Formats: sequence, C-alpha cells, structure tokens
Amino acid sequence: MNNQITVIAFDADDTLWVNEPYFRETEEKFAVMLEDFMPHHSIVAELLKTEITNLPLYGYGIKGFMLSMIETVLRITEGNVDPAVIGKAIALGQEMLNKPIELLDGVEEVLKALHGKYRLVVATKGDLLDQQRKLTKSGLDHYFHHIEIMSDKQERDYQKLIKHLDCKPDEFLMIGNSLKSDVLPVLAIGGHAVHVPYHTTWVHEHIDHTIEHPNFHQGQCLSDILKLVE
Amino acid sequence: MNNQITVIAFDADDTLWVNEPYFRETEEKFAVMLEDFMPHHSIVAELLKTEITNLPLYGYGIKGFMLSMIETVLRITEGNVDPAVIGKAIALGQEMLNKPIELLDGVEEVLKALHGKYRLVVATKGDLLDQQRKLTKSGLDHYFHHIEIMSDKQERDYQKLIKHLDCKPDEFLMIGNSLKSDVLPVLAIGGHAVHVPYHTTWVHEHIDHTIEHPNFHQGQCLSDILKLVE
Repeated sequence: MNNQITVIAFDADDTLWVNEPYFRETEEKFAVMLEDFMPHHSIVAELLKTEITNLPLYGYGIKGFMLSMIETVLRITEGNVDPAVIGKAIALGQEMLNKPIELLDGVEEVLKALHGKYRLVVATKGDLLDQQRKLTKSGLDHYFHHIEIMSDKQERDYQKLIKHLDCKPDEFLMIGNSLKSDVLPVLAIGGHAVHVPYHTTWVHEHIDHTIEHPNFHQGQCLSDILKLVE
Repeated sequence: MNNQITVIAFDADDTLWVNEPYFRETEEKFAVMLEDFMPHHSIVAELLKTEITNLPLYGYGIKGFMLSMIETVLRITEGNVDPAVIGKAIALGQEMLNKPIELLDGVEEVLKALHGKYRLVVATKGDLLDQQRKLTKSGLDHYFHHIEIMSDKQERDYQKLIKHLDCKPDEFLMIGNSLKSDVLPVLAIGGHAVHVPYHTTWVHEHIDHTIEHPNFHQGQCLSDILKLVE
C-alpha cells in the first residue's frame, strides 16, 4: 500500500464496536409487539420503509429510528392501538441508547500499533451525542486525534472531512464495514479504503457489485490493516 | 477590545436566525391539543420537565424534543388518548424541521464586514443534520470556515473546539444570545465573549446574575460587534 498515508479514519459502528445487531434485536422485539396486526416480516418491511422515507429529514441515528418506530406503530395499527405500545417503542430506543459498548476483535491492538505513527480519526454517521458517548464509553478516545460525526458519507462529505483534516486525498485511508459508505465515496475522491466486513449490515448499506480499484484493499478482520500499512 | 482575536465564533439559533419562537409556537399548539387533560401552563411545565430529564440521553435538538412531546402525551393522559394525538405531535416536530430560515437583523452585513479579516465559524448545539441543513438554507455557509455542532456548550466543549481550531483562548471570540452557553464557559477558559440578547430565550438557558469580566462585552444587536472588533 501507498506509504504516503498520514491519516487513518475508522468507521465506528460495526468497525470498532457492535451496533447493527442491536438494531436487528430491537426490530425483532418491535415486530413481536405488533404481530397481532401484521405478519412479522411485513412489520420489519414497514419499519424499513418509514426509516428510508425519514432519512433525509432525520438523518442517521437512534433518535430518528425511535421516531420511525412510533410512526410505523401508528400506520400499521391504523391508530387502533393501546398508547402503551408507543411507550414500549420509546423504551426500546432508550435501551439502545444505554447499551454498553462491545469492542470488536483486535480493535485495541490495532489502535495501539498505529497510534503515534498516523493521525487516527473516527469518521461516523449517527446522532452526535450518542456517538460521542459511545466513544467515551469505549475507552478508546485517547487514541484519536479527532472524532467527526458526519450527517452522511457521500463524496462531498469526505471532501469536507479531508479539507478539514488538512490532508491530501492520497494521504487519507478510510477503514470500515460498509462498501457503500466507507469505501466507494473515498475511492471516488482519490483516497484509499480498506473494507473490513461485518456479519450484519443494514440492507440500506448493501451494494450488489464487486470493487476493483488500485486504492482498494479487502481485509478479513481489522488486524489485517497492520499488514497493509506497515 | 483585544486586537489579537483571530477566530470569531457565532452561535446559530437566535443569534444568526430565528429559532426559539418556533419552539414556543409548537409548545403552544401542543398545549392546546391536550387542554382537555390539564391546564395549559401545567402541560408546558410537564413538557419542560420531560425535556430536561431527557437532555443527558437525547441531547439538544428537534428530534429529542419530538420524543419528549410524545412521552409527555403518554404521561399526562395516562395512556387514555387517541393515538392520532401522537401522530399530531410528530407532525408538529416535522413542521419545525421543515421551517424556512429567517435571518436576524444585520447578520449578512456583519458577516460580510468580518469575512476575510477573521476566521469565522458557527458553534451551535442541536441535531447535526438539522443544523447543517439550516446553514445551507440560510445561504450564509460561504462566510464560514467551519461549522461545529457541539453536543453541549460547557467549558470542556469549548476547550476541545479551540484545540481543534488550533488557536489560543485569547484569540477566540464567541458571540451568542445565551449568557449560560455562549458567554460564561468561554470567559472561564480565557476567551472573549459578546452577548447579543434575543427576546425569547429557553428557560433552561437563563442565569440570574450579572456578568462583569474584562473579556466580556454586552451588545444590543449583532451590528454592535463591528464597533467592538474594528
């Protein structure tokens, strides 16, 4: 790999710590709560539809997800629901906000090895306060120069980030579990990217083609980064 | 005023554009919607109580406010409510998210005069996506080097901001309408602050003493800044 890399940015959710499985668990409980009204898979599909519709208005993160759960309850029950169900949806979301942090394998080892040699940053979507709280809870914050909470991860968002970090695209390496959000836009603006897959990825993050690009590397686990950059 | 100032940071809501009156309007509509259950002023008090309780979990911004409205409906109706009322609370919040931007007097003139002479930044609390959207809608984004969405505005948050902007406290001037959030913590870390009051301020931002400090200046309107720094 190019040895001009000066900044390494890590996606957070499902790259540094467990996240998506908590959403899947919550969806599961949500669907069980409403199965008198609709088959399980249809409830999950309705919730996803609400989330995608609200994404431009709410952005990423748990608070928007909570509002989408509530809206979905109202729609699929056509308003014929005990309001206590809404209270349970709020409780499900608050439970997510209060989850402890579960670091993924190799995270601490990788950060320790790279710290001091590269400027390390976190580049993540989601709710501002929630992501900052997770970083603090993770005990990893001292490894990072900076945490950037991004409202989206499109090319223009990475361009802003790189400008802000005052580095050239060619000096920037992004590591993450989403080809759509962590890899493709970074390659498009001339940066480097490593994909480290995670077993659970939100359907909205899926892409259906393979990537071949000189600045792209496929990892199997986070520790593979060390072989690539050292 | 100290002529070492290199960075001028502006609070956004109720400093650059109208914000708090929209919350008051929404609270008003919310209370009218529920006045069969409780007197008007008690509804507003219950909503505020919910907001303050949820602040550590949700942070600032409209999405947290929406969730607090919904929770308040459930609590004050003790669950005996037509779920359509919850739908209306969501609609009230979405209406807020879609409000056009109404610039305050003198904003454009002040930014035009300071642009190029100082590094101008926006330093604001609130939802990430919502604040970015407001800045874009305002048409003011080209004046700013950077927008910092802060999860809170306490001393440590300003310390991080100043470190991040790579300037000394003494070179930093904050302008805003909240003595509690825009002035006191900035003075405490050695920065400069100008208070430009706004007619409507959230009760949670009130302080009940006066400020005397060599780095503090009281403005009557935003244009007063020009006399102070030029």
